[in-house]
Amino acid sequence: MVLGQPIVGGNAHNVTGRTFQVCDRRTGEVLPGEFVVADTQLTEHAVHVAVRAFRKLRWYDGPTRANLLRAIGRQLEAIRPEIVARAVAESGLPEARVQGELTRTIGQATMFANLVETDGWKDSRHVSALPDRTPPRPDIQFEHRPLGPVVVFGASNFPLAFSVAGGDTISALAAGCPVIAKAHPAHPGTSELAGRAIHDAVKECGLPEGTFSLLFDDGYAVGAQLVQSSGVRAVGFTGSRKGGVALMSLIAEREYPIPFFGEMSSINPSIVMPSVVANRGTAFAEAVYASCTLGVGQFCTNPGVFFVVGDTTEIVGRLKVLMEGGTPGVMLTEGIGETYVKGFADLASVNGVEAIVTPTVAGAPGLARTNCVVFRSEANAQDEIFGPSTLIVECLALREALECLRTLDGQLTASVHGNPSEVTQEIRFALEEVAGRIIFNQFPTGVEVCEAMVHGGPYPATSDGRSTSVGTAAIYRWVRPIAAQNWPA
Amino acid sequence: MVLGQPIVGGNAHNVTGRTFQVCDRRTGEVLPGEFVVADTQLTEHAVHVAVRAFRKLRWYDGPTRANLLRAIGRQLEAIRPEIVARAVAESGLPEARVQGELTRTIGQATMFANLVETDGWKDSRHVSALPDRTPPRPDIQFEHRPLGPVVVFGASNFPLAFSVAGGDTISALAAGCPVIAKAHPAHPGTSELAGRAIHDAVKECGLPEGTFSLLFDDGYAVGAQLVQSSGVRAVGFTGSRKGGVALMSLIAEREYPIPFFGEMSSINPSIVMPSVVANRGTAFAEAVYASCTLGVGQFCTNPGVFFVVGDTTEIVGRLKVLMEGGTPGVMLTEGIGETYVKGFADLASVNGVEAIVTPTVAGAPGLARTNCVVFRSEANAQDEIFGPSTLIVECLALREALECLRTLDGQLTASVHGNPSEVTQEIRFALEEVAGRIIFNQFPTGVEVCEAMVHGGPYPATSDGRSTSVGTAAIYRWVRPIAAQNWPA
Repeated sequence: MVLGQPIVGGNAHNVTGRTFQVCDRRTGEVLPGEFVVADTQLTEHAVHVAVRAFRKLRWYDGPTRANLLRAIGRQLEAIRPEIVARAVAESGLPEARVQGELTRTIGQATMFANLVETDGWKDSRHVSALPDRTPPRPDIQFEHRPLGPVVVFGASNFPLAFSVAGGDTISALAAGCPVIAKAHPAHPGTSELAGRAIHDAVKECGLPEGTFSLLFDDGYAVGAQLVQSSGVRAVGFTGSRKGGVALMSLIAEREYPIPFFGEMSSINPSIVMPSVVANRGTAFAEAVYASCTLGVGQFCTNPGVFFVVGDTTEIVGRLKVLMEGGTPGVMLTEGIGETYVKGFADLASVNGVEAIVTPTVAGAPGLARTNCVVFRSEANAQDEIFGPSTLIVECLALREALECLRTLDGQLTASVHGNPSEVTQEIRFALEEVAGRIIFNQFPTGVEVCEAMVHGGPYPATSDGRSTSVGTAAIYRWVRPIAAQNWPA
Repeated sequence: MVLGQPIVGGNAHNVTGRTFQVCDRRTGEVLPGEFVVADTQLTEHAVHVAVRAFRKLRWYDGPTRANLLRAIGRQLEAIRPEIVARAVAESGLPEARVQGELTRTIGQATMFANLVETDGWKDSRHVSALPDRTPPRPDIQFEHRPLGPVVVFGASNFPLAFSVAGGDTISALAAGCPVIAKAHPAHPGTSELAGRAIHDAVKECGLPEGTFSLLFDDGYAVGAQLVQSSGVRAVGFTGSRKGGVALMSLIAEREYPIPFFGEMSSINPSIVMPSVVANRGTAFAEAVYASCTLGVGQFCTNPGVFFVVGDTTEIVGRLKVLMEGGTPGVMLTEGIGETYVKGFADLASVNGVEAIVTPTVAGAPGLARTNCVVFRSEANAQDEIFGPSTLIVECLALREALECLRTLDGQLTASVHGNPSEVTQEIRFALEEVAGRIIFNQFPTGVEVCEAMVHGGPYPATSDGRSTSVGTAAIYRWVRPIAAQNWPA
């Protein structure tokens, strides 16, 4: 049951104050729950109890933290019907997709439980004493230890896997850091259910109050206060470039600098080599359509631009038919829908950009085409359009495609489609320079949760491209190395 | 021979412009060399050639980079008499110390050569394809790859080991990043000699122009331009808190955020347990004296404060005799000497602080005493005093010492002296919370260069406590992970 109450200090409070509500994305009906916006005092209290909890939490061993993560998984599984129904209503995403996302979210918790059950992730190093050397060498033991309280902002497009119980929260708890989650205002009910699952797991495991807190706000005040609070040691965020840049600026004003891991925007460029154009244009167009419209195009990894080396007639022709026949999907929020339609219109208004299929309503597919010269000179053509559209850039030669790629900002992914013999070292370098994940003959949508994944990339894909938000390496966001010298056993 | 010429684009240029000179710290005589201050054009050119070099450099394999590092070591060894003499003259440090520092600098290059000769450091991960799974799992290969051009600021107190050919430069080159070094204005001749050694090694190995550049400036313009230049991908700095904070602010203004690894200030607190006071006060005081006055107290790891649990009469008594008998050493620069004398006077002026031995000239030892209440309430008592002084804080109980420790900013090191049975988990936590290296019954001066070392710590010890500037783990400052999905062999 959704209560609208924040969770602070290990207890669901009974607080009052300004509230907000949300509607069912499919019907417009108001959903149960009046969500109390945290005031400055409650927000500061959440940080205070997290700082206090950290003093204990950092001493718990890996198996204890693994138990917590498994308990979170069990608690989430126990409320599957309720949380899936609420997430479907709040996001408008299809039920099958949300079911899969919950399974993935629980899988993430299990993966990190397995990771911290043993100490391999700590990169432990030991240099033993050499007392007879001149000068004597001391005994030194190195390992990674948790940073301290972490603030996590939930994302709109993954109400489960990148939100309250998502990758940032799970990897931070795995590292031994308390978490203060700020619920995304588009799905506060889903957030509350996930937050209470974590709260119950913390209680079940007997971990300190303040290991986890959850706050609501339909504005920006709570988030701003959290990232500037002196007790906070790191921030994880997945959202818009505008929101991420605003948080970066607030964090840059802090006296005590902290890492900010903000995933912000990516158009996920692909190079399409001549062999594809020559031999399999129609099949390729069908695969492009499937990837671009998956989840109504609302993935950070949506392929937003294809640099096609050669004639685009066949690919564009097939895509046009598919997109014109596509049914408009429900988008995550009204605002996202409006921004999508406007974003495509802005792109189509660029001199030299041809609108092939124009989305007139939110969630309808969109297709545009231009050439290399226009693409390189028009910043508008390089902006992310969050939704089911893509841009085909016709290039006369690979050199043109690489020049387009080099004008781009940082990306989460960069792909090439072609024969293995076409993929030169120059292409690999160009892809690596711009992105965190490079892909051959596959599409960027679908991020495998595993130890080798990198979901991150140079700015503005993320604010700090030296880490990943998906996969076990995400734990290194929340730790720092400590050396113990000559320490007694 | 010192020419005063910057090194840009792999060649020593013949540039003109404003110049500056330096004096022998021991005699005041002007030393050879008129160092040309880089103008904005030359500075931007240095970044430009570094960006170009990176396109090639990142593709060289580990053994090629290892060859470069070994060649740098050989080139430095070949100019040992000249560079040691120049560093002694520019820094006023004793010859034996500078000889040792050069050996350490060459040793660092060898250590990183050994590290990158094989690929173990890359944390390579491989998840193989499962084509029959639903959905199919792709093949994914993960490894760390270089970030791009790195700017390194030389430190005043280590003209070799933390400067032009120091740890930041060597670890960045090891990672595959080009380096633009900004020479410290106190030792430009030493910097030039080290820079030419690197330049010659780059040529010897046939690596691209722009792999390494060196610029001079006796002001701040070159450094400011470098850290704000769009082509730069990371910055390493060792110096004052004022200088480091100024660079942090400049870097925070960038549109494209980059990591800044600034080592800034540390007073390296120690807790002295009752068993030391009771059983070995005099011997302990002698060890404190040796550590505090080593290198005229000009180490980042100088022990600046001791929280003594118990009566301090014996320790202070012995320290007083030793410090009064100490000879003033030559300090690195006139400014550092003046700041030292003034810093101690500021401390002594605090109500409740007793000056036991007052340094009236630069480089003379200093000793002060206070109690826990004064220490906790006076921010002045917590400032770093760079030089051979220390502060004894008398505490009635361990609880008081821990309270003092908890009021401190972040530190490079934190120590405890006592019996193993006295070292509780509470003490370990308090030390870990504040520092990057925790030490039992040894002194923080003397930083072992090895794979387990952490030389770093929470702000303001460093601007980013999630890394180390000493030891092989320093390479992770300059890399980011990349995943290659379904990539052809």
